[in-house]
Amino acid sequence: MTEFKPIGLIHTPNTDKSLTPIQSARSDLPGTVEVFSQYTEGLQGLEEFSHIFVFYEFHKSEKDIALLVNPYLDEKKHGLFATRFPCRPNPLGFSVVRLVTRKENILFISGADMLDGSPLLDIKPYIPEFDVFDATRTGWFKNRSVK
Amino acid sequence: MTEFKPIGLIHTPNTDKSLTPIQSARSDLPGTVEVFSQYTEGLQGLEEFSHIFVFYEFHKSEKDIALLVNPYLDEKKHGLFATRFPCRPNPLGFSVVRLVTRKENILFISGADMLDGSPLLDIKPYIPEFDVFDATRTGWFKNRSVK
Repeated sequence: MTEFKPIGLIHTPNTDKSLTPIQSARSDLPGTVEVFSQYTEGLQGLEEFSHIFVFYEFHKSEKDIALLVNPYLDEKKHGLFATRFPCRPNPLGFSVVRLVTRKENILFISGADMLDGSPLLDIKPYIPEFDVFDATRTGWFKNRSVK
Repeated sequence: MTEFKPIGLIHTPNTDKSLTPIQSARSDLPGTVEVFSQYTEGLQGLEEFSHIFVFYEFHKSEKDIALLVNPYLDEKKHGLFATRFPCRPNPLGFSVVRLVTRKENILFISGADMLDGSPLLDIKPYIPEFDVFDATRTGWFKNRSVK
C-alpha cells in the first residue's frame, strides 16, 4: 500500500458524469488546475510547454469494481484494463490537456474531461519524442459501436 | 489520502538506476508485467492493442523531494512538474510500452524503462485518437543540453 496525497484540486464545468466529455482529445472545455501553494516552485517553466499530463483521482467512481466492463464507446464488454473505464482497482485518471497559461499556482487549461473537484496527484510535461507512439493495433476501439 | 495498492509486479533487466534507459521511447529492452492472478479477467482483449500505458510506483525514489531539479537530459534546474524526474510528491511513474504478447496474467513487453520490481498500479490501452497531441512547445526539452 502506498498513500497518495492530493497536491491540488481540479476545477472544471463537469459536475454531471453523464455530461462529461469522453477524453480530453474530444473536449475543448476550459478548466483550472489549482496546485497547492507549497508546490508553486515546482511549476517553474511548466508554462513553456503547450500540453501537460494531469494525473488525478477518480474520486466519484464506484469502489466495487468489475473486471469486465462496457466502455462508453462500445456496447460489448471488454477486460477493464483494455479500457479507460474509471472504476478501477486504483482510481487513477489522467488527461493530456492544453496549458493555456499559468498564474502562480493556477494552471488555466483547455480540454477538461475530468469531474469538478478531482484531487490532483501529479503533473508531467507532454513531450512528443517520449509520448507519441505508432500504435498499429487498437483492439475493440477500432471496431467500436459508438463513434 | 488515498491508498493505492499494487495489482502486480514489473520485471525488467533494470536493476541499476544509473544504467536504466531514460524513457520507454529510448528503450528496446524486454520485460514482463506480472498482473496478480485475481485480476486476469480484466486483461481480456488487451493483447489486441499494440501499445499500453503501464502505471507504477517509483519505489526506489527518494522520499525527500526537491521542487527544483536537474532532469537527466539537462544541466539546468527546472520546476519538478516541468520534468519527468522520479522523486515526486506522489511517486507515480508511467511508461508506454509495446505489448508483444500476453500469456494469461503475464504481459511480455518491449521498451522497458522501469526498475525491476516496480509495483504495478494500473494498465490502460494506448489509443492514438486519445493520446497523440500536437504539442507545439516543449520548453527546456527543446533546448536541452543532453541529447
